[in-house]
Amino acid sequence: MRAFLAPEGVKNMIAEIISVGTELLLGNVANTDARDISEKLAELGIDVYYHTVVGDNPQRLTQAVELAKSRSDIIITTGGLGPTCDDLTKQVLAKAFGLELYFDEEEARRIRSWFEKRRSIRMTDNNLQQAYLPAGCTVFRNEVGTAPGCAFYADGVHVIMLPGPPNECNTMLNKSVVPYLRKLSKGVILSHNIRVFGEGESSVESKLRDLMNSLSNPTLAPYAKEGEVMLRVTAKAGTDEEAEAMMQPVLKQVQEVLGDLIYGIDVDSLEQLAVQLLARQGLTISAAESCTGGLLAKRLTDIPGASRVFKGGVTVYTNECKTALLGIDPSLIEEKGAVSREVAVEMARRIREKLGADLGVGITGLAGPDGDGIHEVGTVFVALAADKGCFIRKLQLGDGGRDRVRFLSASSALDMVRRYLTGLPVETY
Amino acid sequence: MRAFLAPEGVKNMIAEIISVGTELLLGNVANTDARDISEKLAELGIDVYYHTVVGDNPQRLTQAVELAKSRSDIIITTGGLGPTCDDLTKQVLAKAFGLELYFDEEEARRIRSWFEKRRSIRMTDNNLQQAYLPAGCTVFRNEVGTAPGCAFYADGVHVIMLPGPPNECNTMLNKSVVPYLRKLSKGVILSHNIRVFGEGESSVESKLRDLMNSLSNPTLAPYAKEGEVMLRVTAKAGTDEEAEAMMQPVLKQVQEVLGDLIYGIDVDSLEQLAVQLLARQGLTISAAESCTGGLLAKRLTDIPGASRVFKGGVTVYTNECKTALLGIDPSLIEEKGAVSREVAVEMARRIREKLGADLGVGITGLAGPDGDGIHEVGTVFVALAADKGCFIRKLQLGDGGRDRVRFLSASSALDMVRRYLTGLPVETY
Repeated sequence: MRAFLAPEGVKNMIAEIISVGTELLLGNVANTDARDISEKLAELGIDVYYHTVVGDNPQRLTQAVELAKSRSDIIITTGGLGPTCDDLTKQVLAKAFGLELYFDEEEARRIRSWFEKRRSIRMTDNNLQQAYLPAGCTVFRNEVGTAPGCAFYADGVHVIMLPGPPNECNTMLNKSVVPYLRKLSKGVILSHNIRVFGEGESSVESKLRDLMNSLSNPTLAPYAKEGEVMLRVTAKAGTDEEAEAMMQPVLKQVQEVLGDLIYGIDVDSLEQLAVQLLARQGLTISAAESCTGGLLAKRLTDIPGASRVFKGGVTVYTNECKTALLGIDPSLIEEKGAVSREVAVEMARRIREKLGADLGVGITGLAGPDGDGIHEVGTVFVALAADKGCFIRKLQLGDGGRDRVRFLSASSALDMVRRYLTGLPVETY
Repeated sequence: MRAFLAPEGVKNMIAEIISVGTELLLGNVANTDARDISEKLAELGIDVYYHTVVGDNPQRLTQAVELAKSRSDIIITTGGLGPTCDDLTKQVLAKAFGLELYFDEEEARRIRSWFEKRRSIRMTDNNLQQAYLPAGCTVFRNEVGTAPGCAFYADGVHVIMLPGPPNECNTMLNKSVVPYLRKLSKGVILSHNIRVFGEGESSVESKLRDLMNSLSNPTLAPYAKEGEVMLRVTAKAGTDEEAEAMMQPVLKQVQEVLGDLIYGIDVDSLEQLAVQLLARQGLTISAAESCTGGLLAKRLTDIPGASRVFKGGVTVYTNECKTALLGIDPSLIEEKGAVSREVAVEMARRIREKLGADLGVGITGLAGPDGDGIHEVGTVFVALAADKGCFIRKLQLGDGGRDRVRFLSASSALDMVRRYLTGLPVETY
């Protein structure tokens, strides 16, 4: 990942994010825009010191902007670019920086044509308000909505305004904001994200503490994320090649310490990796889920193009259902229990066979809050059936909430798949 | 819902939320604590004017607290109560309000016993740092973690400190913070949430505009949320009974206007309602999903106790799979197309029969980003098979992103289920 460096080359620029929207203050939605922007800025080597949320209120927004001007190099706003009279971000920011708004004919044309293509939605004159933009700004086209974003530099501060709806904000962030920030850069900051599954943050940290402490450029920093650990290596240098050359020895050292706990570098997620590996090897997968209740299928099918590798799956929540859909012998369930090594393996084998898939996954366990009187809440068996045999993991995920147990169980299944497909040892049955 | 009223009885108190955590500024997680707290405060009739996120930095946190003191009646912090040297929220807040920290023996005992119960995790002396609390505060016990929260009143401001991990924050919010805020109240604010599915926010708003404008106490306000509309009726009065009596006519008027678009009042979600209705009627459900890829199963099984009503489901992503798991005739798929009314109905009928469930749901459609050359992206057929016949909906959800199409398709299926189970008309096949 190529990145941004403050002109002085040493101190990072400081950014803050101001999100505008009463719906955020009412708790209708979480501020995912601020998260997404922050994640991207961190990769670009820009320090984010504050997030602020204010409602659709010009006085309070003005105060937040004045405060931000006094302490940050970059201000990024989200929201308040819509067509209603509540949407005041452009007016407030332009005023705070002494800029006029002008009517951008090209954006007006785009907005009109957006509505013409969607005949079911009528355009009102309000919609054309969105074509007013601060004089001299760089316009960011909105490819998935009507409100354009923009950027300008004034009073020593870089200001960037983005629309609030998460898909519009995110698309503009990746397509326009990142390139815009890069152009400002006189050097580069590159980073790599090392993704780790199967060990906690504190354990990973203690293994790497000496290495982390010995580094200053590049740096190495751990982040806990959804039951995984991510390690980010970041280098500042004059050119991409230099930065890359500085990072390689660190990547190698981390790999020596963590070995195959690392599932990928610069990979999005375990599910994305699994779908990629399957597609590359021309293999298919199927899943029989009990306690995860369709979450593994959902995560696999979150990846566009999953239909080429995911044959399908069953959610077999009840015992009869395990028999009706998979033909599992009721006496096996009776004898070993629905939450058992044997039933997990049988689920994996039978879904694989039933769908003629190359791989079959079976997951059965206790997500909580109720136990079964035999196993502790958080006990999950994950089985993988494949050409080379049957593999199984017993997880003890504890009572950290139903969502967490389900998510980690599905993650563990995906981790078994990646280990199998890359020829690493997997726990055998 | 019973609620909080500012002592003066007219102007609401103003609150702001300060979240402390570098992980938020790095974009590792979204600020769901601020969303959850805001939602609760809105129900209590407390206005939230700002959210601020700062890192684990005492100077910047101090500045944020000083600013909050100058403009808000209630300050709620989240995060920074942990055992590491980064966790400084209590120190900073105590200092800002001129309070000493004292060592709470009872909390220290709780922390020690928490670790004793979990022998796999070793307690360090750092953990006992969590037992230091501001002098004179009300202690909020942490039932799902070690860090206690607390509240105090100083310099004319109510300060509440909560732990950062979402499940700890949420549990304390509901069990301790809401009762604490209620005790401050001299009157009551009650609210009811009317949940609406099947019509957009602007359309609902235009139908209710006159009514909304005519009201001042109680008030009626619409919120868009995950493809649904929520209408909140809020009344301020001297007693619960008075407030309730004031709201009843408004609830009735809204019901007259929106009729059966309302799926519930003070209900959590469509899936919760569906599971409730099924459980109450002693009925079971099953699902065959294509484009939703297990999301309906996942949402049903998100509800604790779903195993009593959800028999199971299949994710039939490929055509062969529809045949292998459900026995759908390949020639039907060939003739009508995988995305068709006929295939959706066949999926619903067959999963119902296969699992001996009272209801069967079938969902097939195009979630995008790729189309099939026949239907527009966002075209989805949702079928419901039941005793009284077969029902079907054709949805045109547009190209608003894969996640949105999938979510709304599953919501629509749940809405058909609730309509069927409450004797309302459903689109027949």
